[in-house]
Amino acid sequence: MKFTVAQLNYHIGNFNRNKELICNAITKAKAEGSDLIIFSELCIPGYPPLDLLDRLDFIAKCSQSVNEIAKECTGITAIIGSPTLNKNAEGKKLFNSALVLAEGEIIFSANKALLPTYDIFDEYRYFEPENRFSLFTFKGLKLAITICEDLWDEQPFDNEFEKSRLYTVSPMEELAKQSPDIIINISASPFSYSKTEAKEKIFRSKAVKYQIPVISVNQTGANTELIFDGASIIVNKKGEVFKQLPFFEEAVETFSFEELLTGTIAVNIAKPTAIPLIHKALVTGIRDYFTKTGFKSSIIGLSGGIDSAICLCLAAEALGNENVRALLMPSRYSSAHSVTDAVALAKALNVRYDIVSIEKPFNAFEEELAPLFEGKERDITEENIQARIRAVLLMAVSNKQGCILLNTSNKSEAAVGYGTLYGDMAGGLSVIGDVYKTDIYRLADYINRNREIIPANTITKMPSAELRPDQLDSDSLPDYTTLDTILYQYIELQKPAQRIIDEGSDPETVYKVIKLINFNEYKRYQAPPVLRISSKAFGAGRRMPLVFYLF
Amino acid sequence: MKFTVAQLNYHIGNFNRNKELICNAITKAKAEGSDLIIFSELCIPGYPPLDLLDRLDFIAKCSQSVNEIAKECTGITAIIGSPTLNKNAEGKKLFNSALVLAEGEIIFSANKALLPTYDIFDEYRYFEPENRFSLFTFKGLKLAITICEDLWDEQPFDNEFEKSRLYTVSPMEELAKQSPDIIINISASPFSYSKTEAKEKIFRSKAVKYQIPVISVNQTGANTELIFDGASIIVNKKGEVFKQLPFFEEAVETFSFEELLTGTIAVNIAKPTAIPLIHKALVTGIRDYFTKTGFKSSIIGLSGGIDSAICLCLAAEALGNENVRALLMPSRYSSAHSVTDAVALAKALNVRYDIVSIEKPFNAFEEELAPLFEGKERDITEENIQARIRAVLLMAVSNKQGCILLNTSNKSEAAVGYGTLYGDMAGGLSVIGDVYKTDIYRLADYINRNREIIPANTITKMPSAELRPDQLDSDSLPDYTTLDTILYQYIELQKPAQRIIDEGSDPETVYKVIKLINFNEYKRYQAPPVLRISSKAFGAGRRMPLVFYLF
Repeated sequence: MKFTVAQLNYHIGNFNRNKELICNAITKAKAEGSDLIIFSELCIPGYPPLDLLDRLDFIAKCSQSVNEIAKECTGITAIIGSPTLNKNAEGKKLFNSALVLAEGEIIFSANKALLPTYDIFDEYRYFEPENRFSLFTFKGLKLAITICEDLWDEQPFDNEFEKSRLYTVSPMEELAKQSPDIIINISASPFSYSKTEAKEKIFRSKAVKYQIPVISVNQTGANTELIFDGASIIVNKKGEVFKQLPFFEEAVETFSFEELLTGTIAVNIAKPTAIPLIHKALVTGIRDYFTKTGFKSSIIGLSGGIDSAICLCLAAEALGNENVRALLMPSRYSSAHSVTDAVALAKALNVRYDIVSIEKPFNAFEEELAPLFEGKERDITEENIQARIRAVLLMAVSNKQGCILLNTSNKSEAAVGYGTLYGDMAGGLSVIGDVYKTDIYRLADYINRNREIIPANTITKMPSAELRPDQLDSDSLPDYTTLDTILYQYIELQKPAQRIIDEGSDPETVYKVIKLINFNEYKRYQAPPVLRISSKAFGAGRRMPLVFYLF
Repeated sequence: MKFTVAQLNYHIGNFNRNKELICNAITKAKAEGSDLIIFSELCIPGYPPLDLLDRLDFIAKCSQSVNEIAKECTGITAIIGSPTLNKNAEGKKLFNSALVLAEGEIIFSANKALLPTYDIFDEYRYFEPENRFSLFTFKGLKLAITICEDLWDEQPFDNEFEKSRLYTVSPMEELAKQSPDIIINISASPFSYSKTEAKEKIFRSKAVKYQIPVISVNQTGANTELIFDGASIIVNKKGEVFKQLPFFEEAVETFSFEELLTGTIAVNIAKPTAIPLIHKALVTGIRDYFTKTGFKSSIIGLSGGIDSAICLCLAAEALGNENVRALLMPSRYSSAHSVTDAVALAKALNVRYDIVSIEKPFNAFEEELAPLFEGKERDITEENIQARIRAVLLMAVSNKQGCILLNTSNKSEAAVGYGTLYGDMAGGLSVIGDVYKTDIYRLADYINRNREIIPANTITKMPSAELRPDQLDSDSLPDYTTLDTILYQYIELQKPAQRIIDEGSDPETVYKVIKLINFNEYKRYQAPPVLRISSKAFGAGRRMPLVFYLF
C-alpha cells in the first residue's frame, strides 16, 4: 500500500491554479499506484489567507474547490487542508480543517486544536479550536490526522520568557489513547533559519514518544514576506528520518506504507547549513513575489556597497539577469569606487545599468528651499534629500517601465533607523531586511564561492552612506559585530537590557542601541514587506506601539 | 458608601506618568470620601501595549507599579488593570487582570476570560483566558468584576458573516450564579462612530438581564491610531443611564452606591451625533500623537482642496495655530484658485504658510531621466514625480524644523489607490485616512458651522489632483457618493460583490472598485498609521495578503 506526499507552492486566492496543482498531483499519484495522497494545511486557498477568511465569498470558493477536487479522487483518497464553517451556534465562524476526500465525498474531517497566535501567526483571529479528537481508519490503518501546531504542544521559543507549553490541551495525547498506527501532520510552516532543526526534532520526538511513524507535509514557495521551505519529512517509529523532501522546491513523491511501518530503513540526510538556506529562501521569496503578482522585472539602486550588491545577485538569480536593471546615482559625496564597483558587478551579472546624477535635482531643491532654510546649518535634512531624490528616480523608472523597485536595506540599519524614509527605505519588497549586516558578509562569501561576482572591494571597504564628505557608518553606529550582537539579543531573544549588559555588552552602547530601535518604530511602520528568514523579522511578526515611552 | 470612576488618558510604557495619574485620582477620591475607585483595563502599562507584553522587563515594571500604587490605597480600595503572570505550567504566559488593591496589598484578582482577537485586537496573542469566576465582596456588596469583552459574549458585528456569539463561555452567566449586587466592567474600548450605541446597549441589556447596576470604566485619549472615547457609563438595574462621563476627556467622578442601587434616578443623556464625535476623535488623535511622542509642531501640504483644508483645521485645533505650518506647492497644472483658496484658509486659521514652486526640481528630474525615457510617452510617471517632489519638500521642512508631516489622504482615495506612494501618501500620521470623502464634506460643514473657516470654493469645487491639465478625480473614479457606498459595503460590511450588485450598485463599477481596492494593498502597506474612527480602518485592523489572486 502506498502514500504520496505532495509538497506544492500555492497562490493565495487563486482557486483554479491551486486546484490544478492539486489535481495534477493526484493524477501523478494515481499513475504511481498510490492509495493516499497528502497535501498541506489550507492548500485550497493557499496560506496565509489572512483577512480574506473574513469574507463569505472566499469561504464559499474554498468549499466549491473542495467539492470539485473530491470528484477527482476516484480510486485514491486525498487529505487536503481547507477552512470549513463552524456550524455550532457559538464560537469563531471557521475551523482550520484537514478533510479526507474519496469518490466525490468528504469522508472524514479533523479540525486544528492548537491555533498559533504569536509572531506572524493569527489563527485564533479566524478559527475555533477543536476539542474532540478521533482517528481516521484507512484500509485498516488508524491515522492520527493533525494540523501543524497540533503536534507543537511543547516547543522551544527564542524568547525565553515564553512558556514552552503554550496550550492546555495536547491533541496528540488525546489521539494516542485511541492507538493510532501513523501520525499525519499537514502544515504550513514558514522558514526560519533557526527553526529547521527544531522542526525535525518535534517530528522525531513524537515518533519516539508514541512509537509510530510521522508523515509531515509542508507547503513550499513564498507568499509576500513568508517563505515556506517545504522539507516535508517522514520519520519512522524509531524517530529516524525515513525521507525528507527538498527545501524550497515542489515535490510529489510516493512511498510504501509497509516500508515505513517496518521501520528498518533510515536515510542519512545531509543537513543544509544556514547561509545556503537563507540564500535559497531569499531567491524563492523574490521569485514568488514577482510570479504571483504577475510582474517580471525589477530595478535596484546600486551604490557600490555590499547591500545593494547582494540584492542584485539575488534578484538576477531569481528573475534572470534580463529582468533586472540597476540605476547608479552618484552624488558629489560618492567615492570614485562606488561607481566602478557597481559597474563591475553589473557587468559580472550581465545586468543593464544606467547612471543618473542626482546633482541637478539636488541643486534645484536647495534653491527652492533656501528662503525657508535661511540661517539654518546644513544637517541631516540635506542627506535625506539626496536619498529621496534617488527614490524619486528609481520610482520613476519603476512607474515608466512597470518594474518593481527592490529595497536593499539590511536588518541592522532597519533596526536602528539608519535609513531615509521615502528614500533608501523605498521599494515594493525588502530583500535583506531580515538579514543582519554580519550575515550579509557571509552571504557575499557564499555568492562568491565559485568565482568573484561581487567585487572584492565592495566586500572589504568600510560601509558608508556617502551622504556627506568622508561619512562612514561607524561614525554614528557601533561596529556591526557589536551592534548585531546587541540587536539579536534584544530583538530575537527579547532579553532585557540589563541581561544583555550582564552577559558582556557595554552598558552605554546597549542603551543607545535600544533607544534607537524603539525610537525608529515609526520608520519601520512604513517600510516595505520584509522577506522573513529569522524567528523575529520586522513586519507582521513584531507589533510594537509607535507611540510609547521607553520604560 | 461611595465609588469613584477614574477615566484617564494613559501613556503606554510611561509607568511613572501613569502611576502619577492614578495616584492623583486616588487622592481626589479620598478627599471626596470615596470607598472604592475604579480604573480602566490595563491602566498600569497603558493600552494597547502590543508586543511590549512579550518582554519580561516590561512585565516586571507593571508589577512594581502595582505594588507602589497599592501602598497609596490607604483608607480606600482601588480596582486597577494590569497584566499578571500566569503561574500555571501550561498556557500563555500572562493574564489580563483586574486587581483589587487595599492597604498595600493585592486583595483580589479577576482575569479576563473573553479575549478579543479580531480587527485591531490581538489579545489571545498574549493572554491566557480565565475559566474560573468568583465575586469580590466589598463592605457587604458582592461585585462581579469583569474586563471589557467579558460582557460582550453576544455582540453585533458590522460583517454579518461574523457570529454574534463569538465565545463558548459567558463569564457573566457564571458570575450571575453567585448572585452579585453590581457588575463592574473595566475596559479599554476604542472609539468607532458606529459602535457608541451598541456599547451603551450592551451595558443596559446586562443590567436588565441580571437586574443589577453596571459600572463601566473606559480609558480616554489616543495611542497612535486608536482613539478611546472614555464615555464611561453607569447604568441602574432597570437599564437606565445613571451617569455618563464625557467623551474624549479625562474625568474622575464620585457617586453614591446607595443612589445607584435604589435605581430611581435616571438622567437623560443627550446623544452626540457621529460627525461631532468624529471631529473630536480626530483632534484627540492628533493631539495625543504629538503630546506622547514629545513633538510640538506639524507641517501640512496645503493644496486648496478640501482634504488638506480639513486636516489643517483639525491640526490647528489640536496643536494650536502657532504649531502648524502649511506649505503650498503649486505646479504648472495648478489652477489659480488652488493657491488663493489655500492662502485664504491659512489666513482664516492664522497659520504660517510658505509657497514653494515644484517647477525647478520637476525640470531637473525630467532632464536627468530624458535619456532613459527616450521615445516613451508622458504618463502617470510624471504625475507621480510631481507628488514625490512635494513629499521631498515637506519632509525637508519636517527634518529641518523637527515638525511632523501630517498626511491628508482620505479613506476613499486610500481604498482605491488614488495617491502616490512616497508622494501624497507620505506623513507621520494619517489624519483622515479612515474618513470617506462624503464624510469629509460633512466634517467641512461642521467646521464651518459658526463661521466660514474653510473657503466655500474649497468645498464646492470639483475634486482634482491637479497633476495634469484639467484633471478631475471623476476622470478615473466614480462619483464619490457611488464610490463610498460600494467601499463601505465591501470594507466595513465585507459583503460579497454579488450582494452589493443585488442591492442596487452597477456591476461594472462594483468589480472595478473591488479590483482597485485589492490591487492597492501594497500601497496601503506602506502608508502611515491611520486615526481609526470606523469599525474597519486600514492598518492593523485589516490584514490582507499583498500577494494574492482576486478570486
